[in-house]
Amino acid sequence: MSLAKIAVDISSGDHGASVTLPAAIKFAQNTPQVELVLVGDESIISPAIPEKLKNKIKVLHAPETVLMDDPPVIALRAKKRSSMRLAVDLVRSKEADICVSAGNTGALMAMSHTRLRTIKGIDRPAIMGSFPVSKGKEICLLDLGANVTASSENLFQFAILAHGLQANQLNPKPRIALLNVGHEDIKGTAVVKETAEKLHACDALNFIGYIEGNELFSDKADIVVCDGFVGNIMLKSCEGIVKTLYEKMLTGLKNRLIFSLTFKNILKKLMKDTFQDYSTDHRNGAIFVGLNGLVLKSHGNASENSFLKALELGLTVIKDFDCQKYESLVAKITSSEVCL
Amino acid sequence: MSLAKIAVDISSGDHGASVTLPAAIKFAQNTPQVELVLVGDESIISPAIPEKLKNKIKVLHAPETVLMDDPPVIALRAKKRSSMRLAVDLVRSKEADICVSAGNTGALMAMSHTRLRTIKGIDRPAIMGSFPVSKGKEICLLDLGANVTASSENLFQFAILAHGLQANQLNPKPRIALLNVGHEDIKGTAVVKETAEKLHACDALNFIGYIEGNELFSDKADIVVCDGFVGNIMLKSCEGIVKTLYEKMLTGLKNRLIFSLTFKNILKKLMKDTFQDYSTDHRNGAIFVGLNGLVLKSHGNASENSFLKALELGLTVIKDFDCQKYESLVAKITSSEVCL
Repeated sequence: MSLAKIAVDISSGDHGASVTLPAAIKFAQNTPQVELVLVGDESIISPAIPEKLKNKIKVLHAPETVLMDDPPVIALRAKKRSSMRLAVDLVRSKEADICVSAGNTGALMAMSHTRLRTIKGIDRPAIMGSFPVSKGKEICLLDLGANVTASSENLFQFAILAHGLQANQLNPKPRIALLNVGHEDIKGTAVVKETAEKLHACDALNFIGYIEGNELFSDKADIVVCDGFVGNIMLKSCEGIVKTLYEKMLTGLKNRLIFSLTFKNILKKLMKDTFQDYSTDHRNGAIFVGLNGLVLKSHGNASENSFLKALELGLTVIKDFDCQKYESLVAKITSSEVCL
Repeated sequence: MSLAKIAVDISSGDHGASVTLPAAIKFAQNTPQVELVLVGDESIISPAIPEKLKNKIKVLHAPETVLMDDPPVIALRAKKRSSMRLAVDLVRSKEADICVSAGNTGALMAMSHTRLRTIKGIDRPAIMGSFPVSKGKEICLLDLGANVTASSENLFQFAILAHGLQANQLNPKPRIALLNVGHEDIKGTAVVKETAEKLHACDALNFIGYIEGNELFSDKADIVVCDGFVGNIMLKSCEGIVKTLYEKMLTGLKNRLIFSLTFKNILKKLMKDTFQDYSTDHRNGAIFVGLNGLVLKSHGNASENSFLKALELGLTVIKDFDCQKYESLVAKITSSEVCL
């Protein structure tokens, strides 16, 4: 494959360069066929780059930083030389295939939306993430928080966007489900019911109907669509309970008189194997979909290892993604008579 | 305390009398100061009651059963002699302090709403459940599915209803939070923001602001308010992921060569201790609040043990609940100038 170019927003996030910079350098060290542009304070970044990586790591100086509590409007209007803005602009100018940032979600979405604009036929971008389900598979969820309300047309478009990213030779028609409080036709809000009608009428999409919260992790669908309010709360609640259970087990383990170190290690390994798939340290990154270019959002408080996972995900997304093919697919479905 | 009277809907639920009847009999056997009215098919129920329990178990014959897929309107109009309807009517006529049913939620809510009516000042009933948080405490969540949409006035009233049930001498002003996608004032839907304003303005309630999904399990609030669409999906997603994690650990355990039975048992005990608080087998039951009487909804597919937990919860709720005090508190807050 050709060289993948990733723009990395170094200054943003809870920990800024102290986390993102070593992660980016490690990523460049371990990954062939990749070129990074690190965007941030040059005086911090440049001295940290090892001599032998200078051919694959470029630096773009950005004197400003979008803070985690900057309102989107401030980030947009007052921080035109921020690392976030300049990193997104590299995607806009096609100098990068994707931008990876741990910056504040609202500002990053506003910046991406304003600078990249939505694909023709798409009214609103969405945030898409994934969760492991049984048998090593993953389920894609969107929207995870870009739109606290969404019309049925928005939700329908989110389904198209996810289909475009997920459909491939192995799975040409990924199963699309709509998150709801029951399976029956009478269940749900007016918007959800309208969306179901639109999806049912669209032959290009494989709509399998409603899915309930407890079915999300059992490989019933490949893509699940909801508005950003529900999606965000659902995702964070799950993260919260996973963390709580993990800590509870650790405490329980400490409070038990188990003298065998071997057994303790077996148990810790078992816990790690079970929980790590759901931990943000092991998997990190949500994709902004619907824009003329790719942006990947890392958790704001990502550790070095976690930010590395986001960079790895970014590379995978680029590989799977063909922008032109994607746009023409979206155009085909949104303009299709079948769907309207 | 005086005798607690519980009406049990025997025929409803995925498993009907095969589960509810033995659970109810066991409950009567183990619980002093309780009187049950078992509502359902007399020819099944009566022969099953042991002679020595006949003084504390009455039977009310109901020739009809509301099925799990009966639409609420069918249940209401065509099944006036159903076990569900007659059990709710025992609460209406004050012959029972609470009705416990594993029947279909929509039908049970429609029946309860129609037969019991809302408390003066309350426009809509809600479903309230609880979840364990750290330090052995619980968090109350509502609405869990009675209202797929809710106005700010509805959400505000839900807060009052939960406050009325939760406030006690030990905790006279329980912490009330509003479920949202962030903490900042700009976050959330218009309805959520309006509700926050109403709650802030109400001195009688201890409103602590917004809470995010990942904070639900960390003892930051005593009561969390949301609409029934979000609440239902959040609750079921958490149940889904807990089940998935538990099964993953069990499989991991089976696939490991651990020869010591002692270790296996220690581990199983540890897993049980960790997960059982969140399992529907260990805790079961959501309360319909806002009505002139108490109704408790058990999981439809509850096992015998799980239905027993619902009956136990029902008894606790009766003990903690003073209907008149509750109604006057609701009246006081809803009519208070401070809140309007």
